Amino acid sequence: MNIEKYPSKLLENAVNEFSKLPGIGRKSALRLVLHLLRQEKEVVNAFGTSLIQLRNEIKHCKVCYNVSDTEVCHICSSPSRENSVICVVENIRDVMAIENTLQFNGLFHVLGGIISPMDGIGPSDIEIDSLIKRVKQHEIVEVVLALSTTMEGDTTNFYIFKKLKGLDVKITTLSRGVSIGDELEYTDELTLGRSLINRVNYESLVGK
Amino acid sequence: MNIEKYPSKLLENAVNEFSKLPGIGRKSALRLVLHLLRQEKEVVNAFGTSLIQLRNEIKHCKVCYNVSDTEVCHICSSPSRENSVICVVENIRDVMAIENTLQFNGLFHVLGGIISPMDGIGPSDIEIDSLIKRVKQHEIVEVVLALSTTMEGDTTNFYIFKKLKGLDVKITTLSRGVSIGDELEYTDELTLGRSLINRVNYESLVGK
Repeated sequence: MNIEKYPSKLLENAVNEFSKLPGIGRKSALRLVLHLLRQEKEVVNAFGTSLIQLRNEIKHCKVCYNVSDTEVCHICSSPSRENSVICVVENIRDVMAIENTLQFNGLFHVLGGIISPMDGIGPSDIEIDSLIKRVKQHEIVEVVLALSTTMEGDTTNFYIFKKLKGLDVKITTLSRGVSIGDELEYTDELTLGRSLINRVNYESLVGK
Repeated sequence: MNIEKYPSKLLENAVNEFSKLPGIGRKSALRLVLHLLRQEKEVVNAFGTSLIQLRNEIKHCKVCYNVSDTEVCHICSSPSRENSVICVVENIRDVMAIENTLQFNGLFHVLGGIISPMDGIGPSDIEIDSLIKRVKQHEIVEVVLALSTTMEGDTTNFYIFKKLKGLDVKITTLSRGVSIGDELEYTDELTLGRSLINRVNYESLVGK
């Protein structure tokens, strides 16, 4: 319940701005600001400028809605990607997570959120219509639904599934199961159950 | 060990800048950057501008070296402060901590660090000479040493003490003792010992 008295209005401004960020309280904000004060001018200018540029110059790919520096992102414009497979994800971070696995060579579609009636987010607030249009207009063979297994994720999956059902496209979803390295006894029943239902041929894993 | 592939150079820049801050890793940096991406342009511009202004326009008070928007800070220029008492602190945060107690009405002297041979910081790297000069040139009655009780703090205290010893000025230091609200059994022996040595007259606390 401190009434904070900052020795400078400029300092106070910067602290205010930092403490608007998620997970950063006023004390951490002050610590960060004092750290910046100790840096060279060029360093702080570069920081400030990078933020301003980020917000003003960044684009969203007009095909998949991933962030991009160009009109069409480097994934959508790559000739080596399988452009008949679309992986549907909630946000940019999911694209990065999937890219890091090096196991997917198709394209993405970034919804920019999931259907969540509690938060007032309906199907029209996220990029579902553009996905359906994309599937209809291009020769898409498979749509991989890669949303999280929350109620909202399941709802969104189901909504997209219904919308795509009539079309000639395979709809798949990520397999769920025991994480690699996890012990069975500490895995929740739901996941373990799903691992059993979706059990795979051992031979196919080890190669013939 | 992820090789991070960012979908945008602008995004990557901003993540790099954020992850230079103390205590912010690349994952948190990305989270913060994506948060900013979702904000209005004006909000992000204000953030970036506040940082640039902070570093370029902030001043250090030429009397006490506290940060300030003016040549002489609002504490040093206040007519209601006791200008014969100087409290010596390590940094700006300490000024704010002491100001928040509302128990000190004198002036400050911000050293901007403490003597730490391990980090290559000697007496001439911090504002000690200016303190001595200030005490000599003005009618200072008391210097309160309010540095932390680390080895470096003690060394700095002692150095200042030696420098001021010949002058006609009272040198005091913060009392150390059991924190208000702390249980005796959980207090370290050193602090508890100091509390005993410096025990105060109970009557003086409760009033006569």
